[in-house]
Amino acid sequence: MALLLQTFPERVAVWARLFAGAGERLICGAEQVRDPAEVRYLACWTPPPDLSVYPNLEVVLSVGAGVDQMPQMPPGVRLCRTLAPGVEEMVRDWVVMAVLMLYRRMPIYLAQARAGRWQAHEVPLARKGRVGIMGMGRIGQLAAQTLAGLGFQVAGWSRSGRAVAGVQMFGAAGLGAFLERCDLLICLLPLTDETRGVLNAGLFARLPQGAHLVHAGRGAQLDMGALRAALDSGRLGSAMLDVTDPEPLPADHWAWADPRLIVTPHVAASTDSTEGAEHALAVIRAARAGAPLPGLVDTVRGY
Amino acid sequence: MALLLQTFPERVAVWARLFAGAGERLICGAEQVRDPAEVRYLACWTPPPDLSVYPNLEVVLSVGAGVDQMPQMPPGVRLCRTLAPGVEEMVRDWVVMAVLMLYRRMPIYLAQARAGRWQAHEVPLARKGRVGIMGMGRIGQLAAQTLAGLGFQVAGWSRSGRAVAGVQMFGAAGLGAFLERCDLLICLLPLTDETRGVLNAGLFARLPQGAHLVHAGRGAQLDMGALRAALDSGRLGSAMLDVTDPEPLPADHWAWADPRLIVTPHVAASTDSTEGAEHALAVIRAARAGAPLPGLVDTVRGY
Repeated sequence: MALLLQTFPERVAVWARLFAGAGERLICGAEQVRDPAEVRYLACWTPPPDLSVYPNLEVVLSVGAGVDQMPQMPPGVRLCRTLAPGVEEMVRDWVVMAVLMLYRRMPIYLAQARAGRWQAHEVPLARKGRVGIMGMGRIGQLAAQTLAGLGFQVAGWSRSGRAVAGVQMFGAAGLGAFLERCDLLICLLPLTDETRGVLNAGLFARLPQGAHLVHAGRGAQLDMGALRAALDSGRLGSAMLDVTDPEPLPADHWAWADPRLIVTPHVAASTDSTEGAEHALAVIRAARAGAPLPGLVDTVRGY
Repeated sequence: MALLLQTFPERVAVWARLFAGAGERLICGAEQVRDPAEVRYLACWTPPPDLSVYPNLEVVLSVGAGVDQMPQMPPGVRLCRTLAPGVEEMVRDWVVMAVLMLYRRMPIYLAQARAGRWQAHEVPLARKGRVGIMGMGRIGQLAAQTLAGLGFQVAGWSRSGRAVAGVQMFGAAGLGAFLERCDLLICLLPLTDETRGVLNAGLFARLPQGAHLVHAGRGAQLDMGALRAALDSGRLGSAMLDVTDPEPLPADHWAWADPRLIVTPHVAASTDSTEGAEHALAVIRAARAGAPLPGLVDTVRGY
């Protein structure tokens, strides 16, 4: 019986070492599976479309904290998430990087570099920039604090509009007023029925002309066609996405080639490989012992 | 009599508006000069190689705070700099952006995006990263404070090694020990005879294998050939430069095309266009009135 791991090469190398040390069998990639009946545990971010090919599957383990990308589990298959420290700081760092990259015109400078063109443009002062964050949970608050420390004028939007120190807060009814002041909009919302498709043409139309978008929520919140239209019309000046729809983005997708857009492959955060492998070994040992699984997801509540 | 302005288009537009309002004559670009005798004032970053083509030139005005890019002034020509608020924060923001871009592997993700490739890599925690700053003046201290706030382990190097709160400081004799702990080296040194060429093969050899370089000092501090060799050997993993040698970088220079390198065209900071134009108008009025010139550089001391 084995754990099938589907992830990127650096992580595979770390898990392989730790699984070998623990005497546990690891299969690295679906193409290495010789007998599907061997696969009792599956660790991945996005699972294969048909889990029933593994008749003895007991546990699916998300290699990250998120499980909204997971389908309904087949009967008898339990779903676990990996919780690791530092994930919130990782997302904050990606968001701060993305805000600075758009505010300081990196899409333009990267396009110029490809053409071998040395051409300066006006350098904007951070303190003149109005940044707005949709989703003011722990990551939103961390990002707000760091961006305010750089001098940006930071506002936040959440359903409740609950006060956050140093941030001008807007609630559900204040969405229009919030968007009107966003030179740069950051999405950190969780994916729910209410937030699905929230980044659409109607929302973009309420931003100032030439605003910028940083998206580190979930791909299904973004209407990619509306994004393209907003870039074409100049409503949006540029955008940086860590999540896309679909995900992964196909090799021939327009978004890769658009110079106004920078895409990273869902890497705002990821679990440290060593911590993830140790968590997976703990899940295997618990499952074998019939003990409670660490990180077990209540699939009715969804988290 | 006119001021000849050589700069980027957005700045030209702002100056043109303010000069028209003040009733002063502005020539936008050397190619627009019909009679060289008309040019009494020249505002630029890098001046043309031969200033003697303007026989009535009285004042050369650097559009930024720096004047080390300026040649020796011909007899009778005075040199002024433009001092504007916010420049230190601008450089800090560029440095923080560059550190995050290299630490979070943007050179790799940008190369993958060009190939339409969705491939995640391990996400490093900021708190595991050892950053070192050469040059701990006001900008270095600002950068150290922000990077420490993101969790990075920050060290500083200065000739004096003078203590800075929250930063592990090294002095002149501690350069080797400082470099050995730099996963990411930031250069913010001023250009002096001692720092010319300081970023060379010998220095790179003392960094950990795969270290990263962020350079926002001056182009003449960097041996570009040694940089290329260090990238080729893997001593350096990636680099981000706001200053280069030569500057501007020619269109066919290898650095534009190297995927491990990101170059911006000396835009870590620049004077706000409105403030710069108003300063230029003040210089013109003072020169005409025989009053002391604002920002006049003592060309013996060099600042």
